[in-house]
Amino acid sequence: MFTFTPIGYVRSPYRQKFAIPRQPGLVPAARGEVVFTGEFADPNCLREIEQFSHLWLLFRFHETAARGWSPTVQPPRLGGKDRVGVFASRSTFRPNGIGLSAVTNLGWEHRDGELVLQVGGLDLLDGTPIIDIKPYLPYADSIAAATGGYAETAPGNAFAVTFSAAADEALAALAATYPDLRQLVTAVLEQDPRPAWRQRDPDDKQYGMSLYDLNIKWRVYPDGLEVVRIEPAGLED
Amino acid sequence: MFTFTPIGYVRSPYRQKFAIPRQPGLVPAARGEVVFTGEFADPNCLREIEQFSHLWLLFRFHETAARGWSPTVQPPRLGGKDRVGVFASRSTFRPNGIGLSAVTNLGWEHRDGELVLQVGGLDLLDGTPIIDIKPYLPYADSIAAATGGYAETAPGNAFAVTFSAAADEALAALAATYPDLRQLVTAVLEQDPRPAWRQRDPDDKQYGMSLYDLNIKWRVYPDGLEVVRIEPAGLED
Repeated sequence: MFTFTPIGYVRSPYRQKFAIPRQPGLVPAARGEVVFTGEFADPNCLREIEQFSHLWLLFRFHETAARGWSPTVQPPRLGGKDRVGVFASRSTFRPNGIGLSAVTNLGWEHRDGELVLQVGGLDLLDGTPIIDIKPYLPYADSIAAATGGYAETAPGNAFAVTFSAAADEALAALAATYPDLRQLVTAVLEQDPRPAWRQRDPDDKQYGMSLYDLNIKWRVYPDGLEVVRIEPAGLED
Repeated sequence: MFTFTPIGYVRSPYRQKFAIPRQPGLVPAARGEVVFTGEFADPNCLREIEQFSHLWLLFRFHETAARGWSPTVQPPRLGGKDRVGVFASRSTFRPNGIGLSAVTNLGWEHRDGELVLQVGGLDLLDGTPIIDIKPYLPYADSIAAATGGYAETAPGNAFAVTFSAAADEALAALAATYPDLRQLVTAVLEQDPRPAWRQRDPDDKQYGMSLYDLNIKWRVYPDGLEVVRIEPAGLED
């Protein structure tokens, strides 16, 4: 057994697993940051990192790690029905609960006494502990000829996302705080974050998710999704 | 702090760090295997893994982990002179000591009561503890547009490798046990595994390294390397 100490944690718009895209890079508007802690909050550790356009984040699946693992899992890409081995999946329910995400490197800064590294295309929950950061080395890491089996291509066609008049007003009022919010909400919802078995099917429910400190409510129609309301968290139905 | 339990360990031709290529995939002839241990020696964990041509290995830098880390390191690619931040490098001397390698998936089998996964393009020391195996997902992991800074391209031109008559005889005698040995020795040595500061310079030393249970001895000349002898380990000068 080995012990690991987080080098920092993530600040992310994603406050619940439900809304998170299933792989990094699918939602480029999802910007976040790594906040370094303790002895790792040392800018020397980041010297020349600006040379690299992309970085690997190694992180702890902190929300699900306590729930353990099982030898087989049901990936969303197979409709949540067929089972594959845990080592043939990127499931969070895995031995040792470590995740791996390639993100874009948007630079680091000192801000309010903290050392923070900005990243894009993030797919991590707010608060996720970071174990390591490595430069993405195209000559070793980018394998164009690799075949990806049941996950060969990116998830299917985008679902059309529209905004109600009330949601449009809310976006306008929030523009100073969250300038990219429309883009982020669209990018998250056009992937239809509902459970795999009802992907692309309309139903009569109102769905909700948290992004930043906001609640986003939407409905699913035969021809797409409509964002009905965007409200500060705490104003629950 | 988190604790991690290895899921298995690596069997590799590389018995010392000196000979290991600096990134995976540089020496395709370097085949090895992951031997699963304990509850992870369960073929269900590998179900459908044959769908993926490449896999990520997450592993422990077990030989160097005890030596800790420092905020800056001197990458071989910069001649071992200039310093970069540890998170801008793939150095083994890093917080938490976890490595990441993409390898080719050559299939798994039960052999002599063990569950083993064969891999190619391996760059890990014999005995390396494996923490996780993940499928390589081209749509998320292969980022052709990424820029790699000081490590943009694969290491430089190959050094010419020749074999003495004695080395040729040894290869012939060992062909039944190690059919790819010439290819492996050539691929390892053409990268010139000497320290970065003397790369490509001739000198008058005889060098040695271990591969499998063999000692490989070579000399460096102005126009390339010559493998002088290949002997079973234990027959030291």
